[in-house]
Amino acid sequence: MPAISNKGMAMPESPIRKLVPFADAAKQKGKHIYHLNIGQPDIKTPVVALEAVKNNNLEVIAYSNSAGSASYREKLAAYYQKHEIPVTSEEIIITTGGSEALLFTLGSITDTDDEIIIPEPFYANYNGFATSNGVKVVPVQASIENNFALPPIADFEKLITPKTKAILICNPGNPTGYLYTKEEIEQLAALVKKHDIFLVADEVYREFAYDNAKHFSVMAQQGIEENAIMIDSVSKRYSMCGARIGCVVSKNKTFIQTALKFAQARLSPPTFAQIASEAALDTPESYFTEVIEEYVIRRNTLIEGLQQIKGVKVATPKGAFYCIVELPVKDAEDFARWLLEDFDYQNETVMVAPAAGFYSTPNTGTNQVRIAYVLNKKDLGKAIEILAKALEVYPHKA
Amino acid sequence: MPAISNKGMAMPESPIRKLVPFADAAKQKGKHIYHLNIGQPDIKTPVVALEAVKNNNLEVIAYSNSAGSASYREKLAAYYQKHEIPVTSEEIIITTGGSEALLFTLGSITDTDDEIIIPEPFYANYNGFATSNGVKVVPVQASIENNFALPPIADFEKLITPKTKAILICNPGNPTGYLYTKEEIEQLAALVKKHDIFLVADEVYREFAYDNAKHFSVMAQQGIEENAIMIDSVSKRYSMCGARIGCVVSKNKTFIQTALKFAQARLSPPTFAQIASEAALDTPESYFTEVIEEYVIRRNTLIEGLQQIKGVKVATPKGAFYCIVELPVKDAEDFARWLLEDFDYQNETVMVAPAAGFYSTPNTGTNQVRIAYVLNKKDLGKAIEILAKALEVYPHKA
Ligand SMILES: Cc1ncc(COP(=O)(O)O)c(C=O)c1O
Ligand SMILES: Cc1ncc(COP(=O)(O)O)c(C=O)c1O
Repeated sequence: MPAISNKGMAMPESPIRKLVPFADAAKQKGKHIYHLNIGQPDIKTPVVALEAVKNNNLEVIAYSNSAGSASYREKLAAYYQKHEIPVTSEEIIITTGGSEALLFTLGSITDTDDEIIIPEPFYANYNGFATSNGVKVVPVQASIENNFALPPIADFEKLITPKTKAILICNPGNPTGYLYTKEEIEQLAALVKKHDIFLVADEVYREFAYDNAKHFSVMAQQGIEENAIMIDSVSKRYSMCGARIGCVVSKNKTFIQTALKFAQARLSPPTFAQIASEAALDTPESYFTEVIEEYVIRRNTLIEGLQQIKGVKVATPKGAFYCIVELPVKDAEDFARWLLEDFDYQNETVMVAPAAGFYSTPNTGTNQVRIAYVLNKKDLGKAIEILAKALEVYPHKA
Repeated sequence: MPAISNKGMAMPESPIRKLVPFADAAKQKGKHIYHLNIGQPDIKTPVVALEAVKNNNLEVIAYSNSAGSASYREKLAAYYQKHEIPVTSEEIIITTGGSEALLFTLGSITDTDDEIIIPEPFYANYNGFATSNGVKVVPVQASIENNFALPPIADFEKLITPKTKAILICNPGNPTGYLYTKEEIEQLAALVKKHDIFLVADEVYREFAYDNAKHFSVMAQQGIEENAIMIDSVSKRYSMCGARIGCVVSKNKTFIQTALKFAQARLSPPTFAQIASEAALDTPESYFTEVIEEYVIRRNTLIEGLQQIKGVKVATPKGAFYCIVELPVKDAEDFARWLLEDFDYQNETVMVAPAAGFYSTPNTGTNQVRIAYVLNKKDLGKAIEILAKALEVYPHKA
């Protein structure tokens, strides 16, 4: 049989998917599962976006411009400007999801065996994108004790080698929910400038900032125009994950020209989804106010609920819709599987994502899970109740 | 300034795009251009596909399964079976265009510095996909003298090294229009089996086979179940290039499992486009009959027209909608630019793609252009007339 590549064999499986067969088996047995494991919001997509697709009158679904349709890029630039992110349409390339924006970025700034420093825990698919580019992820540990704030700059600095091409942050963070302050971004800016490397900020959860905290984009940070690369997506902002539209943004012209060559090779981003995304820019402010209110209610329900459970430690998220939860168990993956296979409370159970997959340091986060608060308050309340009951009887406690 | 990667610098620019600035300038001056340079058909997308998108009643555009929606994969498998391509839904991964299918394939079967043998001239973006994977394209020359038929197997065999992971063919070919015979596929099958390498067949133009010739898929070839990988796309079949749906198909389970890891990292293919693609499977046969008839008319118009022009040599295409044309000029790229910059006939001109970009051997195909017959008969006729007039007065003849 012809051989699979080393790269292909090294590609990680998503930590979220590992448990899917157990969940399927549980459902087969008629168990109801509350899904706290995935970042697929139940929030409705804005009607303006859906209607635009329904009302399109294209007769030929042709390739769009490789960088995205001109009208969308211009409207998107205006949107950013309104949100104090000073960029022009030429500084934007529309991609097939934030995922593709990350791939174009890694392709443009790294070669085989180069290194990227990422605060951990981090979005697990960064591992996949790094592996598929032959790039090494160098983790710098953030801690649940201070809500996963930016690790000290000295911790980053001592990891920088001639092979380090970028620092990659996620702001607000999946899976941490941490929102970096302006001061933290400034510290990173000074560091990347000093070492002449890129600062890549995955800001796909930008709008999800709570408690009146204000998101500060790397694109708004002065002095790092040549270093800053922003990753964005409509997936979460408009609950439009399946559209597959994102973008990569930078003021570094050489970088954008390079990323564009990757974009040209794959021809164009999806047309229907660009129509939806362009229209989504007209979503009324009230939509976001309601969505944010809803997420704050959910977050509060979740955090307050979890804090009642003995032995549970949780970092309070200030953004996005995830949190990392430390459980009084020996092995959170075993616990998560046990929840699906061996436990139920009134024929219901919960599914959580073991957090170890969000760390790249081995044997880290093994007693943690990631919880996505993408369920309504009532369901979340029930899910927490089930979790509490489960922890009472789980046999392998810490 | 932080450094761009070697890979990023090596990424080729599309040979089709190089001339775009000259075309834009010509349009600015009010010149009308007949576009023979791009593979964007003017054929209408089937109404069933467009209607399905308009009539969708999704309220949340959620991620689909990473391998594509179950219903689409099943219907697609049935479609293949009907067309004598015996595959099941588990052997299919839905991708974002044939482009992504090629990327997943290269990622799954090659590591940095591995080699892929490709008959040239070939679809230029294979270079980009190879470069972004750090893979070397090893060309084997096909010849305009025999319509770009499969080069002798001995020519392939002498290029095989321990680093050779696959032979990649395009059938029918872009840019050659050549349709491989069953016998040619059999020869390739014996070769890949002997050397235990993959045979990747880009069959995105499968339906476009003329003169009652029958397309023979690598998936229908017995004995190479572990070696054969098929790349497909809805882009051309349904004139739905902007949808961005394709697929990668193989009976090799390890390969499919590996490709799926790449698919999972990027989450899912686009939802609206999957709706369109699934519905497109219900396109009535009459649509294809009409489309094929139309392309045959265009091809005949083009080939007969070109054969009238002194010094022009053309390979008669048996499939797809491109042909390679040898011109009595020193440098086809100069000629193509001159057509846009310095020539007009009654304020009209034509745009063609210099063919050198479809060869990877340096200084090859420099007197050839690729012509896509994606215009109607009347416009094609005019375009040929203009080309003939241009060749009369072009100063740098061969
Ligand atoms: C932090 C982060 N970045 C990027 C993505 C990719 O999303 P998409 O490709 O849908 O834009 C996700 C999706 O969950 C994410 O959580
Ligand atoms: C031979 C060939 N393969 C693959 C593709 C990629 O097409 P898509 O990504 O739109 O499916 C094209 C597009 O022109 C092509 O000509």
